[in-house]
Amino acid sequence: MRARAPASSANLGPGFDTLAVAVGLYVEVEVTPAPTLTVTSRGEGADLPCDRHHLAARVAIEVAGTDRLAVSVRSEIPVGRGLGSSAALAVAAAAAAGADDPLAWGVRIDGHPENAAASFAGGLVAASVIGGETVVRSLPLDDQLRFVLLVPDRPLPTAGARAALSPTVPHADAAFNLGRLALLVAGLADHRRLVPGAMDDRLHQEQRAVLFPEAPALLQGLREAGALACCWSGAGPSLLGLATAATVEEVAAEGAAVLKRNEMAGRVLALAADTAGLTVSA
Amino acid sequence: MRARAPASSANLGPGFDTLAVAVGLYVEVEVTPAPTLTVTSRGEGADLPCDRHHLAARVAIEVAGTDRLAVSVRSEIPVGRGLGSSAALAVAAAAAAGADDPLAWGVRIDGHPENAAASFAGGLVAASVIGGETVVRSLPLDDQLRFVLLVPDRPLPTAGARAALSPTVPHADAAFNLGRLALLVAGLADHRRLVPGAMDDRLHQEQRAVLFPEAPALLQGLREAGALACCWSGAGPSLLGLATAATVEEVAAEGAAVLKRNEMAGRVLALAADTAGLTVSA
Repeated sequence: MRARAPASSANLGPGFDTLAVAVGLYVEVEVTPAPTLTVTSRGEGADLPCDRHHLAARVAIEVAGTDRLAVSVRSEIPVGRGLGSSAALAVAAAAAAGADDPLAWGVRIDGHPENAAASFAGGLVAASVIGGETVVRSLPLDDQLRFVLLVPDRPLPTAGARAALSPTVPHADAAFNLGRLALLVAGLADHRRLVPGAMDDRLHQEQRAVLFPEAPALLQGLREAGALACCWSGAGPSLLGLATAATVEEVAAEGAAVLKRNEMAGRVLALAADTAGLTVSA
Repeated sequence: MRARAPASSANLGPGFDTLAVAVGLYVEVEVTPAPTLTVTSRGEGADLPCDRHHLAARVAIEVAGTDRLAVSVRSEIPVGRGLGSSAALAVAAAAAAGADDPLAWGVRIDGHPENAAASFAGGLVAASVIGGETVVRSLPLDDQLRFVLLVPDRPLPTAGARAALSPTVPHADAAFNLGRLALLVAGLADHRRLVPGAMDDRLHQEQRAVLFPEAPALLQGLREAGALACCWSGAGPSLLGLATAATVEEVAAEGAAVLKRNEMAGRVLALAADTAGLTVSA
């Protein structure tokens, strides 16, 4: 079978480990019976070893209960850049291998549910694990919104990103993020009601800036480029600026200038949300 | 002028200092010119001193710039029970005295914006102070939802309630509340998508239970009574159970039994949301 899943941007603003949006950048996986395991990979991530340790192969083998598979991956999703490439790949590979619950595979691989939930369901999602169960709810998303991503060439390892977090936070900072999160949910449903401060965060961005000291200047640049609001994408290093259908081209063009001014090698992606989520075909 | 504002239930579940809902229980304030200050009060709070230190008088005098006023208050909102009585009274008194921005008066009196925002706007609101400005956004609220409130006779002072909070919290607890909050917002928009765990909290309820040791048993009783989910109302001591139009009577009847079984003197209120917010008439 063949399955396609979108990339996602998680930790949206104040929504640490909670809020993610699927964006129109895809990974496709095809899994078919074969005499022996073969793994092929094109596009993003094609430089990773194409053997049984490839994430798509690992998931497909476990789902299918056999390694007599041809696993073919074609990806547009940059790896290790905070765009949910692992979760999307796991969801797509599990579906292509015939899994009953591809979302569960994505959650299992990723450890946190929100990227996998966005890749599975599409659109804007809230996701949490409650009592061992992954609970996912779609939230309304203004179809005028667009997503400008500054994607540095340099990856930021997720493990290091998590280790940078403080084990405790001021109570006021926890409340700060809660207040922003509720305002952000309202603003993502209708961009005319979005206040720039709704994307502010005190739980991870500043702490992780030690791993990515250019981030504050790049975010400021995105704001000056006309982004409605901006934040880290996932655990970085990609940075996300919100724009509308009317402003996305200008913000993206300015975003390229922002990377250049900050001497940061990388690319700019201007994307719409993906609303289909996982799609599977025989 | 005459103004009416609804009570509110704030700190909804995980939405500490963030999320509040207006409920159908009202305070009315009338302010008219008079030779000298007179303050009259009926209903809830009528036992408070009716002089210039009465909250409604203080607000009206400051708004009007004179104390030559007759201030008349009629309230259904229990005082000091976590139902936003001060915020509602301040909003109504300011409006009745002709204030341009009654919400600002409510925020100023209450210190935190969400009760005042709900009393002002009605319905479900998210509110935060961003850069010194109170930002309020209405959120969708399922019109099938109903609110069962257990209102103990014993008040819980707000100052003590705030002092009970820990100055720092585990990062994981901050993330816990964020995840629940986004799921709660989805569930309040459509009760069929509400999971009970979406009202769980780690930022204030447990900490405040030292001031109100019966709270956990009462919440458990509300759950067993059929509430979809439950939480403290504001800083307590009232406790809120969510029900639907179809179940509210049964949950409320059971709620009364829960109070009795726990030897807690108090009453049960079964309310719909208020969707009008502040109303003013000449």
